[in-house]
Amino acid sequence: MLPHPVYNFSAGPAVLPDAVLRTAQNEMLDYNGTGFPVMSMSHRSDVFMSILHHADQDLRTLLDIPRNYKILFMQGGASSQFNMVVMNFANGFRRVDSVVTGNWSSVAHKQMGKLSDVEIHLAADGKAYNYLDLPPANTWDTSRHSAFVHFASNETVNGLQYGTLPEPGADMPPLVCDMSSDILSRRINVRNFGVIYAGAQKNIGPAGATVVIIREDLLERCCKRVPDVWNYQAHVGRQGMHNTPATYPIYIAGLVFRWLLAQGGVAQMETVNALKAAKLYAAIDSSGGFYINNIRPDARSKMNVVFSTPSPELDHCFVQKAGNAGLKMLQGYQSVGGMRASLYNAMPLQGVETLIGFMHDFQRRYG
Amino acid sequence: MLPHPVYNFSAGPAVLPDAVLRTAQNEMLDYNGTGFPVMSMSHRSDVFMSILHHADQDLRTLLDIPRNYKILFMQGGASSQFNMVVMNFANGFRRVDSVVTGNWSSVAHKQMGKLSDVEIHLAADGKAYNYLDLPPANTWDTSRHSAFVHFASNETVNGLQYGTLPEPGADMPPLVCDMSSDILSRRINVRNFGVIYAGAQKNIGPAGATVVIIREDLLERCCKRVPDVWNYQAHVGRQGMHNTPATYPIYIAGLVFRWLLAQGGVAQMETVNALKAAKLYAAIDSSGGFYINNIRPDARSKMNVVFSTPSPELDHCFVQKAGNAGLKMLQGYQSVGGMRASLYNAMPLQGVETLIGFMHDFQRRYG
Repeated sequence: MLPHPVYNFSAGPAVLPDAVLRTAQNEMLDYNGTGFPVMSMSHRSDVFMSILHHADQDLRTLLDIPRNYKILFMQGGASSQFNMVVMNFANGFRRVDSVVTGNWSSVAHKQMGKLSDVEIHLAADGKAYNYLDLPPANTWDTSRHSAFVHFASNETVNGLQYGTLPEPGADMPPLVCDMSSDILSRRINVRNFGVIYAGAQKNIGPAGATVVIIREDLLERCCKRVPDVWNYQAHVGRQGMHNTPATYPIYIAGLVFRWLLAQGGVAQMETVNALKAAKLYAAIDSSGGFYINNIRPDARSKMNVVFSTPSPELDHCFVQKAGNAGLKMLQGYQSVGGMRASLYNAMPLQGVETLIGFMHDFQRRYG
Repeated sequence: MLPHPVYNFSAGPAVLPDAVLRTAQNEMLDYNGTGFPVMSMSHRSDVFMSILHHADQDLRTLLDIPRNYKILFMQGGASSQFNMVVMNFANGFRRVDSVVTGNWSSVAHKQMGKLSDVEIHLAADGKAYNYLDLPPANTWDTSRHSAFVHFASNETVNGLQYGTLPEPGADMPPLVCDMSSDILSRRINVRNFGVIYAGAQKNIGPAGATVVIIREDLLERCCKRVPDVWNYQAHVGRQGMHNTPATYPIYIAGLVFRWLLAQGGVAQMETVNALKAAKLYAAIDSSGGFYINNIRPDARSKMNVVFSTPSPELDHCFVQKAGNAGLKMLQGYQSVGGMRASLYNAMPLQGVETLIGFMHDFQRRYG
């Protein structure tokens, strides 16, 4: 046993609710009196089909997903969606619009152009703001003749987030959003989106499941030349059972959805997440410049709070000492350095307050 | 509690060793005293990197994988490999040879032609044997100028298996083998293969992980036009950490590898699997025609034993009554009907003997 509670600030795979892990532990060898472990169930068994059905329904409730949207629990992570959205939805189009706001949307921008002849048009680039602010949606150079416009609602590495999510404008094609790191953290209007996708390992569940929410009419664009395993239409046509899905990660995601409903749903998460982020940014901003975050306040992520001290050596020391104090995984992304505290739904307010306390102590000793 | 032990004959996701599930249960909230659940660990943390490293090493030991082969733990299932092997290894080639022996190699044959202009050449088709026997490798119409020849070592749906695995002949390009349903069930000579791939959910672990074993020199064929997420070279170059892998399924696979080593390894599995299959086929063959399996003895699968009774109604009745007696998931594949008993490594001999006892009783009552 460790001397104090451990708080896991990992950006992903990330902290999961204790209650979810305890249920999974209890049900490991026998799910709900069936005599079967979830991991050993055929994906076509009634029991697993029911697990999948409830996960679908609960996610619909949580995000108020309309009936003309399909939900798929796929594999491959958000990275596999970069190319799948192009392969499936840009068929017959000349151009895809792409908004680059930081690390992940930049990777998406580069990857989307592979395997396809469609032009990936840079509709906006946060580079103009040195990635310390986000290009507002009304400045995006989009065309309604493009297949879609791709953007990320939250940049996990850079700590940026669209506080107000873009809404479809007159010159906008359907919005395709990588919501990996802030899905379920706040209320959204799904009707504003053509496609929302998210790797599970931040706010949904364990790595291995990828949630894709698709407006039904877009499925008509899916082309038979696309291999079935990457073809949304093929997956929808077989109720998500085109091939064996990642059954156990889906089961855990379902437990997380149930936990979220019991907590009061996404509205309640939004309130708590706003409070957690406000407290941590206040601690940074009131440190007299010892802790630094230069992102414009409106563009600051409530999920991934990046900050640094005056030197890389001190950053390293901070991460080490914080780890010893039970505040784990606070190092920034490999290519960025500094610190990053990820405050997903399963991070309790207490964890953030403990971190703030540690920051004060650290500044007193080293500041 | 159920009145008798439950045996799970599912073709996949399939039975896992009880000892593995108990370890996973014990470690669910705290892996090895780290204070972290495996599911919440960053894939780049030392602890997870060590889990991955040991899984790699143990799989190498189990299958005697030479150093010039790389192992990847990918996502997407075997179905995603159908296209990945073509995209990565057929670049600059005109032809891929493909051997169709049943359901899954037939699906692979159809899918491989998508997204690519390379000719998918039908090098052999078990249709000539009505899928009751396998075309011997020395009859395959292959060319050493083809990119590779693709085949399945075991047909999960049809119950066929190459008892003696093909060896590379003079006119053969590299062998690419879908070993999803019999990997780790018997000794193999990895050196005979260019690529071996397998969905985890049969003999490796939970659905969501896909093992790919690649002879190093073939990686040079991987082309930059292939998106990184489907590019073997990109994954190998980042030690399997190109994007977040399915960490929990990989952890469970690692536990299965350790369990296999403790059982005496693959050689011991091969002995037990041969015995289990021999007993079950003997029960079928000695039923005076009540239980039917028409596959030529040498081509009968030791992993998936398919059989039927004289009528579909009786088959249905068999599956129901067997289920009530704790012998679960014995229905045949949806498009095939009849019965199928999957005898993967984690199915104990006792389970097969219980099934045989039930078959005798059933025949006495309904035969």
